[in-house]
Amino acid sequence: MESRPIRELGENHVVSRFRALASGTLGPDVIVGPGDDAAVISSPDKRLLLFACDMMVEGIHFRQEWAEPRQIGWKAMVQNLSDIAAMGGEAAAAVASIATPGDVPEEVVSAIAEGLAAAASRYGAALVGGDFVGSPGPLVVDVAITGWVERERMLLRRGASPGDALLVTGYLGAAAAGLAARQQALAEAESSLLAEAIRAYHEPRPRLSEAQAIAGARRATSMMDLSDGLADDLPRLCQQSGVGARVRAQAIPIHRACSFVADRLGVNDRQLAITGGEDYELLLTCPPEAVPELSSALSEAVETPLTVIGEIIADEEVMLVDADGSERSLGKGFDHFAASSEARGCSDRAAE
Amino acid sequence: MESRPIRELGENHVVSRFRALASGTLGPDVIVGPGDDAAVISSPDKRLLLFACDMMVEGIHFRQEWAEPRQIGWKAMVQNLSDIAAMGGEAAAAVASIATPGDVPEEVVSAIAEGLAAAASRYGAALVGGDFVGSPGPLVVDVAITGWVERERMLLRRGASPGDALLVTGYLGAAAAGLAARQQALAEAESSLLAEAIRAYHEPRPRLSEAQAIAGARRATSMMDLSDGLADDLPRLCQQSGVGARVRAQAIPIHRACSFVADRLGVNDRQLAITGGEDYELLLTCPPEAVPELSSALSEAVETPLTVIGEIIADEEVMLVDADGSERSLGKGFDHFAASSEARGCSDRAAE
Repeated sequence: MESRPIRELGENHVVSRFRALASGTLGPDVIVGPGDDAAVISSPDKRLLLFACDMMVEGIHFRQEWAEPRQIGWKAMVQNLSDIAAMGGEAAAAVASIATPGDVPEEVVSAIAEGLAAAASRYGAALVGGDFVGSPGPLVVDVAITGWVERERMLLRRGASPGDALLVTGYLGAAAAGLAARQQALAEAESSLLAEAIRAYHEPRPRLSEAQAIAGARRATSMMDLSDGLADDLPRLCQQSGVGARVRAQAIPIHRACSFVADRLGVNDRQLAITGGEDYELLLTCPPEAVPELSSALSEAVETPLTVIGEIIADEEVMLVDADGSERSLGKGFDHFAASSEARGCSDRAAE
Repeated sequence: MESRPIRELGENHVVSRFRALASGTLGPDVIVGPGDDAAVISSPDKRLLLFACDMMVEGIHFRQEWAEPRQIGWKAMVQNLSDIAAMGGEAAAAVASIATPGDVPEEVVSAIAEGLAAAASRYGAALVGGDFVGSPGPLVVDVAITGWVERERMLLRRGASPGDALLVTGYLGAAAAGLAARQQALAEAESSLLAEAIRAYHEPRPRLSEAQAIAGARRATSMMDLSDGLADDLPRLCQQSGVGARVRAQAIPIHRACSFVADRLGVNDRQLAITGGEDYELLLTCPPEAVPELSSALSEAVETPLTVIGEIIADEEVMLVDADGSERSLGKGFDHFAASSEARGCSDRAAE
């Protein structure tokens, strides 16, 4: 067999191979293995154990000239908290591994740890352990998280049925706008909306309260977090559920900071909101008649809006419907290895 | 405040700072936070949740010219399994994050995943998730693991009392001998004992069965795994227990592969067995009268020997007693950041 480098074969190949290997290790205790936002492990208790990890590499997922070290730690923790949220769970404990070149100032590592602890503390997770290792290469921060969820509240990527409404929490595109602003070196001080976009990119919030309100209403049929963007993530939810989706472009709630930055840069805000990652909003489905109930459950708990953006269909295709009724395929198949760090900017995308 | 790089301030400084920050995040559910082999989190269930992580970086913890990719994955998983063993627990599930340069052949990443899955499967852990990211730097493999332990079987680093016997499972020094053999480019084919040392270095085994037999006997007072070597690890156990120890040099069970390689290289085998890391044997304490009971509990379960190597003392000093009765201080204070990759060889040591 000819040897081929990762960047040619691509991320999906690696992920498939990993899942095939991992599947041989799964015993009866594993309710959900690789492929969802978090794995689910049974316990004799009523609650199930959730388990996930997310790694960030300097030069790929963050740049020290853009992000404060504290923000790097914060974001590394939030990605993981968001995976717990996506399952309808609550965070329990996290561990963090950091690889550092020896010439990194001590304050940088301490500030990363501060960010990790601040996000954990803010969202009810305990930071219970870590590993600090030297490295000849870039800074790497890897967080693993555990959480708990009651079986009847657990929400997976699979579970969506044809006819279900497709919804998102909050507004999309602010983080992508923040990344675009950084790439174009726009000055934060220029406008409060610009600053908001940049903050959204560096200091995202996980939707734990929102997720728990949704899970508690017991009407949602599937859920995941939008870490890589609607165009990448919706096809994953559809694939796991064995369905397709039709999204109404006009219905997508665009963050006003996204519209501001898009206008400033002369790009399409809707496109940015659809393809941009790292909003960490929730994408979910429910029977159409359950939408009011879910909305009111959410509005009782938090102020985050819930918006119907389309519907689940039986055909396994994911379509974007424009205002004029024209349809086109959604999904662009982003590959973490194929794209160079430069080409993809410095976005923060995880394999699963 | 003046900015000082990590390598000047050292690992202990970073670890202390991390623990101080993490302590602010620990709620009542956290029974043991950072500082032991694994963290312990309560559950309404009789069993407690264990949680740990260990990161390996190419050029620091492994070299592709020495280790087969499958061995890299195997060892990354075993380090973590060993942390669960050290608590007296059983492994439940693991997640793995891998950062890879784009030019790494796909087979290398697949073989690392194979090693991860093989070790997980062999020792009863499910590999339930992962994250694969591109990197401009060296290969990084980070594993996080969860496990379960019943409260009355849990063994911590703290708990040793003056007068307790100090014991180790198995034989020490084989992994250090394997590393030394690699560093001196000795050929594996030269002797079966040399091959055994090299295999011990690349394919360690976690002492899960041994740990469970020990924990089940309920007579041990403290336990940890020997990942960094007796000279580094015993002072940690003593510090956590607020005690000291006196180790009889002649009592240390030296692995015959260690003696062979030491002889071949003209170095002292006892020194290698005391200072060398990565044996993943268990270091434990118990009242002297419980030694026979623990030994028989262990021999009923497995063939691994249990050897008394010294005793716990009230004075907070860790001393090595030679055959002639002369005493000297044990412990060399290895620092992961201060030492260059070259100076420390390519050993595999973790911050906690």
